[in-house]
Amino acid sequence: MRNTARWAATLGLTATAVCGPLAGASLASPATAPASLYAPSALVLTVGHGESAATAAPLRAVTLTCAPTASGTHPAAAAACAELRAAHGDPSALAAEDSVMCTREYAPVVVTVDGVWQGRRLSYERTFANECVKNAGSASVFTF
Amino acid sequence: MRNTARWAATLGLTATAVCGPLAGASLASPATAPASLYAPSALVLTVGHGESAATAAPLRAVTLTCAPTASGTHPAAAAACAELRAAHGDPSALAAEDSVMCTREYAPVVVTVDGVWQGRRLSYERTFANECVKNAGSASVFTF
Repeated sequence: MRNTARWAATLGLTATAVCGPLAGASLASPATAPASLYAPSALVLTVGHGESAATAAPLRAVTLTCAPTASGTHPAAAAACAELRAAHGDPSALAAEDSVMCTREYAPVVVTVDGVWQGRRLSYERTFANECVKNAGSASVFTF
Repeated sequence: MRNTARWAATLGLTATAVCGPLAGASLASPATAPASLYAPSALVLTVGHGESAATAAPLRAVTLTCAPTASGTHPAAAAACAELRAAHGDPSALAAEDSVMCTREYAPVVVTVDGVWQGRRLSYERTFANECVKNAGSASVFTF
């Protein structure tokens, strides 16, 4: 019991289940996790008005799943997945829409991308000068 | 021009769009962001085998949206949203399933929850002793 307690204490695990009286309680089989056939890609993207995610309340948040198929609340899930795939899942490598011209209005907008891309954890934040520059910052990923 | 450059430099903004020749290019109106009628709730949850998210590759990742309706790749989106709502969006306040008894097998599983809950940013990580304890750690939120 001492070893286990130390393990639990050291790692701050919560020993939620205890081996109580066996009568009337079935011992749950060590649940086998459903196997995953593909590296997961599940992201949540947010946008807020402000200079950093730490100070800007998220105004909108969308989900984006790209495996096995494109889905989520992102308004252009399929296009966004294709664009991220072309950038190898790196939001900083997304190509800006150079043809769009935006005003120089300074109303900073911060975008975050958090989650997993093809089995790799991802946490990204970027600040744009205004909503127009943000929308021009990618073909579809940041347009939500 | 000097002020704007300093702003951009200071904040590391990318001045993607420049006011180039006006001929043949339309000036994009400072896109008005679609208004949001409700505080967003969009989350991505991951699970991996290991003691911390920093060291454990995500084995599975699901999305969970709870506003305006429950959706996402989480296998029990509606139940998970209801459970999170009852815990006021705080994963650490989820009630464990005490009736489930798990073995003492030590095969640590780490769960993360990232995104936005009712307009508030959320980043949570918790390590369980094994998959069974993880599944018993909530009614449905961690069961994916």
